Amino acid sequence: MNKGRLEAFSDGVIAVIITIMVLELKVPHDADPEALVPLVPVFLSYVLSFVYVGIYWSNHHHMFHAVHHVNGAILWANLHLLFWLSLVPFVTGWMDETHFAPLQVAAYGVVLLLSASAYTILTRVLVAEHGKDSLIAKALGSDFKGNISLAIYVVAIAIAFWQRWIACVLYAVVAAIWLIPDRRFEKLLQEKSKP
Amino acid sequence: MNKGRLEAFSDGVIAVIITIMVLELKVPHDADPEALVPLVPVFLSYVLSFVYVGIYWSNHHHMFHAVHHVNGAILWANLHLLFWLSLVPFVTGWMDETHFAPLQVAAYGVVLLLSASAYTILTRVLVAEHGKDSLIAKALGSDFKGNISLAIYVVAIAIAFWQRWIACVLYAVVAAIWLIPDRRFEKLLQEKSKP
Amino acid sequence: MNKGRLEAFSDGVIAVIITIMVLELKVPHDADPEALVPLVPVFLSYVLSFVYVGIYWSNHHHMFHAVHHVNGAILWANLHLLFWLSLVPFVTGWMDETHFAPLQVAAYGVVLLLSASAYTILTRVLVAEHGKDSLIAKALGSDFKGNISLAIYVVAIAIAFWQRWIACVLYAVVAAIWLIPDRRFEKLLQEKSKP
Amino acid sequence: MNKGRLEAFSDGVIAVIITIMVLELKVPHDADPEALVPLVPVFLSYVLSFVYVGIYWSNHHHMFHAVHHVNGAILWANLHLLFWLSLVPFVTGWMDETHFAPLQVAAYGVVLLLSASAYTILTRVLVAEHGKDSLIAKALGSDFKGNISLAIYVVAIAIAFWQRWIACVLYAVVAAIWLIPDRRFEKLLQEKSKP
Repeated sequence: MNKGRLEAFSDGVIAVIITIMVLELKVPHDADPEALVPLVPVFLSYVLSFVYVGIYWSNHHHMFHAVHHVNGAILWANLHLLFWLSLVPFVTGWMDETHFAPLQVAAYGVVLLLSASAYTILTRVLVAEHGKDSLIAKALGSDFKGNISLAIYVVAIAIAFWQRWIACVLYAVVAAIWLIPDRRFEKLLQEKSKP
Repeated sequence: MNKGRLEAFSDGVIAVIITIMVLELKVPHDADPEALVPLVPVFLSYVLSFVYVGIYWSNHHHMFHAVHHVNGAILWANLHLLFWLSLVPFVTGWMDETHFAPLQVAAYGVVLLLSASAYTILTRVLVAEHGKDSLIAKALGSDFKGNISLAIYVVAIAIAFWQRWIACVLYAVVAAIWLIPDRRFEKLLQEKSKP
Repeated sequence: MNKGRLEAFSDGVIAVIITIMVLELKVPHDADPEALVPLVPVFLSYVLSFVYVGIYWSNHHHMFHAVHHVNGAILWANLHLLFWLSLVPFVTGWMDETHFAPLQVAAYGVVLLLSASAYTILTRVLVAEHGKDSLIAKALGSDFKGNISLAIYVVAIAIAFWQRWIACVLYAVVAAIWLIPDRRFEKLLQEKSKP
Repeated sequence: MNKGRLEAFSDGVIAVIITIMVLELKVPHDADPEALVPLVPVFLSYVLSFVYVGIYWSNHHHMFHAVHHVNGAILWANLHLLFWLSLVPFVTGWMDETHFAPLQVAAYGVVLLLSASAYTILTRVLVAEHGKDSLIAKALGSDFKGNISLAIYVVAIAIAFWQRWIACVLYAVVAAIWLIPDRRFEKLLQEKSKP
């Protein structure tokens, strides 16, 4: 089965998710410069969520270069990832609405954790289908960055109830780790195309 | 006529439908943990609707692998399906807003029933265009799963006015039946590509 | 220049327009069966707008089969069409909100008139680029359906201030005229591919 | 790496941005003709934003014709551009909501300035990847239109606090400058394909 439509559908869903978040930026009715002040944390959380969804799109893009074909299990592992990503605008808006209350900061982390887990499951399903000697299995390797991210999310969720701003910083740290795109695939694809 | 643009347009519409539902998850203003409680059924209905739309996309994807060309009737049978699917976010939100009142639970079932009927019509139009000996006609076969689903929907809609939670369980049962992707097309396409 | 990205972008915009309209179907808070009554005209106007946008997509799809290449003027004639189509959800919602007041029913007609005019301009720009002997020029011919539609819209807009329901019926009549897809392109493309 | 998915994703995001703006056109509850009066500036700001996003899409389309391949840096320079564009609906709505207060008119200019800067950065990253003798480097040339636009934006933002309508006129002037599509790429591609 062809991977083209899965890529196109994922692009569509992620494009809607990334732009729907701007609807959470409620337009303030006030014209005063002070109306800008409460917008600052809202804007920063929008930036963080935009970067997160961008990272998922970018890594999804890189990973699917090494994918040859898809099956039913891959379709659903991909939909599972899109499900958790689709909740990112919701938890971002919830966090903003409650002025970064501990519970909501933790909820944001839970959605990030479940998105990351869904991504890990997707990689496992892809490797299972393509075999341990496939290009994709080699490119993913031990998935150090993925595992360290999951660990940081768990710590951040626990800390959120005690020191919510530290949790937010930890979310930003994970984003920074991933902002560097996944060069594993670029490297291997280049090696492969060498004579 | 080429099927590519029909697939792309359907992917676009379904991608918007599946992500627009998250807008129905109204952000609660409260920061208390109790604010989570009323979210639970809302979240479950979101999951169910997401799975339903995912099933339609997945089966649409599988079915169009066996489609060679499209005509005006197919375009409109497809738009008819997209019309009923586009009402899924509305009935999901309506059900949530009325705390799963009997009428709204039934309305949700009616939209599922009409979506399923539209899908059946689409398959008929496709078979009419491609012929009874075509790959798509063979893959669809007697469409047992489709017919049993329609029957369960009718029962669930009637039950909704009496025992609304049973209706909800029945909706989930149909989703479970379909969650297993339509392997008929995978099988036939594999056989076809065999020497 | 390639037409692929213009088609993909148009598909994306039209897909968003067609699904965004469902957001105008405000979820009623009431659970009574009477809550359904005011929804009936709203639902019918949603159906009409969905059919209109579907017609534009279908005809756009058919017409671009006969297009070979695009230039800057075609890009902007196409964006001009998408602009007026993007106002369809707005005028639909406005009509619903004011319970089909004369001014709003007329406004709906004005957006339909301007969308149809934009489509006519697009066809002219395409013919100008491809030449009078091109496939697309032959397929469009005298554009009888296009001209009759423009005339009906003008009549309906004028009637709206006097008999708003007749105006609504006239909008539905034009939709019915176009619901039959533009077979001119199918015919010509078939003839062309004949030996 | 292939540029196809980057184009498709950008098309998706821009399609959502351009149609989401219509949601800012709040449906008035009044049926009086006077209800149209406050809609006039809102409508004009919608037109301006639609044209701006259309210009970005059109120029993006033209520029990527000359792009051969993409890398991680290009992906992120492109996401950076999409980020600022995604704020256009927000600042348009904010300006409307505050009846074009000076601060909000300036904020609109700031988003235009940052979008334009992001576009300039994207061109630089593309030239850096493709080399100074590449088709894209030649097509961009000294980027006179880009630089003059940045200068006008800066002037308009400063003027907004003093004479907000002059700022709005200046925004429209820049749009007019760019409405003429970027023929540099068309010319060069034609020359290239000549024998």
